[in-house]
Amino acid sequence: MVPLWLLLWRNRFDFLSEFSLIESCFVSKAKTMHAGTNVANGDDASVHALEPNQELVVSTDTAVAGVHWPHDFPLEKAADRAVCAALSDLAAMGAEACWAWVSVVAENKHALTLMGQGVADALNRYDVELSGGDTVHAPLNSLNITVAGVLEKNTSMQRKQAKTGEKVWFLGQAGFAALGLEQWLNDQKDGSFVKYFSEITPKLQQGKALRALGVRCCMDVSDGILQDAGHICEASNISMRLELSKFPNWLSLCEQIGEEKATQIVLSGGEDYGLLFTAEPDMHGLDAFAECIGECVEDRDVSTSVEVYCEGEKVNIAAPGYNHFAV
Amino acid sequence: MVPLWLLLWRNRFDFLSEFSLIESCFVSKAKTMHAGTNVANGDDASVHALEPNQELVVSTDTAVAGVHWPHDFPLEKAADRAVCAALSDLAAMGAEACWAWVSVVAENKHALTLMGQGVADALNRYDVELSGGDTVHAPLNSLNITVAGVLEKNTSMQRKQAKTGEKVWFLGQAGFAALGLEQWLNDQKDGSFVKYFSEITPKLQQGKALRALGVRCCMDVSDGILQDAGHICEASNISMRLELSKFPNWLSLCEQIGEEKATQIVLSGGEDYGLLFTAEPDMHGLDAFAECIGECVEDRDVSTSVEVYCEGEKVNIAAPGYNHFAV
Repeated sequence: MVPLWLLLWRNRFDFLSEFSLIESCFVSKAKTMHAGTNVANGDDASVHALEPNQELVVSTDTAVAGVHWPHDFPLEKAADRAVCAALSDLAAMGAEACWAWVSVVAENKHALTLMGQGVADALNRYDVELSGGDTVHAPLNSLNITVAGVLEKNTSMQRKQAKTGEKVWFLGQAGFAALGLEQWLNDQKDGSFVKYFSEITPKLQQGKALRALGVRCCMDVSDGILQDAGHICEASNISMRLELSKFPNWLSLCEQIGEEKATQIVLSGGEDYGLLFTAEPDMHGLDAFAECIGECVEDRDVSTSVEVYCEGEKVNIAAPGYNHFAV
Repeated sequence: MVPLWLLLWRNRFDFLSEFSLIESCFVSKAKTMHAGTNVANGDDASVHALEPNQELVVSTDTAVAGVHWPHDFPLEKAADRAVCAALSDLAAMGAEACWAWVSVVAENKHALTLMGQGVADALNRYDVELSGGDTVHAPLNSLNITVAGVLEKNTSMQRKQAKTGEKVWFLGQAGFAALGLEQWLNDQKDGSFVKYFSEITPKLQQGKALRALGVRCCMDVSDGILQDAGHICEASNISMRLELSKFPNWLSLCEQIGEEKATQIVLSGGEDYGLLFTAEPDMHGLDAFAECIGECVEDRDVSTSVEVYCEGEKVNIAAPGYNHFAV
């Protein structure tokens, strides 16, 4: 006798158990075992040891089909992106990435297999252990990625630690991912910017290097530089002046798409996962990593805490970054 | 100018930012601040310190509307359940619950608000800190909950640590949640079992107490006792004999729903979140927590590693627990 609730509620799965599926789609493909893991994937929870001088750093990110990637975008790449976006948060703190817990909601087994492959690809690329997770069969493909890393106590780079007089730096490409997405949506699947959307490179090595150099304030830019710079200003109680012409590839971008669109896309385009950080003006060695795009100034007015200039001329800022729950 | 990708891709949200929404729906309602937290909710990642003798214990769980709760089930309670189900995994390891990272996918702001309330209710009830998370606007309500706790090094209760000769114990109600869900689906919203589905009580205090008593093998039962007992058998390379009549409220359940259905629901009904554990026969003090429902015997055959008896007579086992990705 099968109970009513099972018939009504859930489908049975007779020829390959969920556990075998998790094993074949995820666990067998993820290669990294972290030395600090004492109980690995497969128990109710995973158990991990930290070194005495270490702190734990944790972030979580959800990516949903139709929101974070177009429905016709390859699921392996979508899953790879989701892992990299989560790792980018650890990079921004300056942490060493160690462990990931991955929950996948999939429309069918094929989708699960594809997402499993993308998750494993990204975790293997960055030597991060798959420490746990679950799978759910439901009519909307999505992933939740929780990642954890470690760093030496009291050294994390934080949004609130920017200071007046510091320079503002950016490491990465601003706006390229948004242009890549636009090309994809316009059916230019081979467009020159598409790779910047389809492949995220979390700046893990650079984040650790910046922290080692003494950088105290850093964040990853996922919602557009203007909005994310505003978060640093708010948390640190400062203002920022940014100079568009100092951004990486500014001139080339203007040539390709025109200055008006370049302004918009550099300031508000999301999904770039570069690092925005501040540093004392006399800090050496940063040129090798990043471009100096502005400076931290005294906070005068919260509503205009980020001012943008282009070759000295003030730019009228139209729109901040992306926000969920728009109506 | 609004870039094309924003128009095509995402809605703008003009009168209340996502950050304000997260603040009002989640952060302002969650009351617990954990002493080990050095960087709280609001940065790219949260940062936490462990005591030198502690290990980190982490689990993650996803709950989706229409899969883990019926579409007409209150969203606050669904969110509360999701948090408690995740905490139940920490209970099974014997950990002290400290931190949670919560990702919510919501159809609209009203759904987000309701789920935020349920998340906060559960976290506040068990003194767990909301350490991070995100929100996504998409057409299927769901939550991902990652929880972390601590325990003294090398004391976690694990599935692989059951031994031949140990007794098998169960703490909780077996099958009551499945009956409650059946009543809900049959439009008996005030049915006597409904509360066992709608309210999960993670056995956090009991898990810590069992670990302190010296219990080495424990798991939380979410997919039905038969399936979950099988996981212990497989991990520990043992078999189990369970006696149905020793289960909590067995006779009363038989009177209410008949022996055949009681057998099925006790063995295969999911969502109970009781603790199944094993202990040396001479371990004292367990009666106060749990019922002794069987014993661990030498493994003879993996395909029948769990044998079930009812008043000494062998029960023919029809169906294991629930599995996602049924076809």
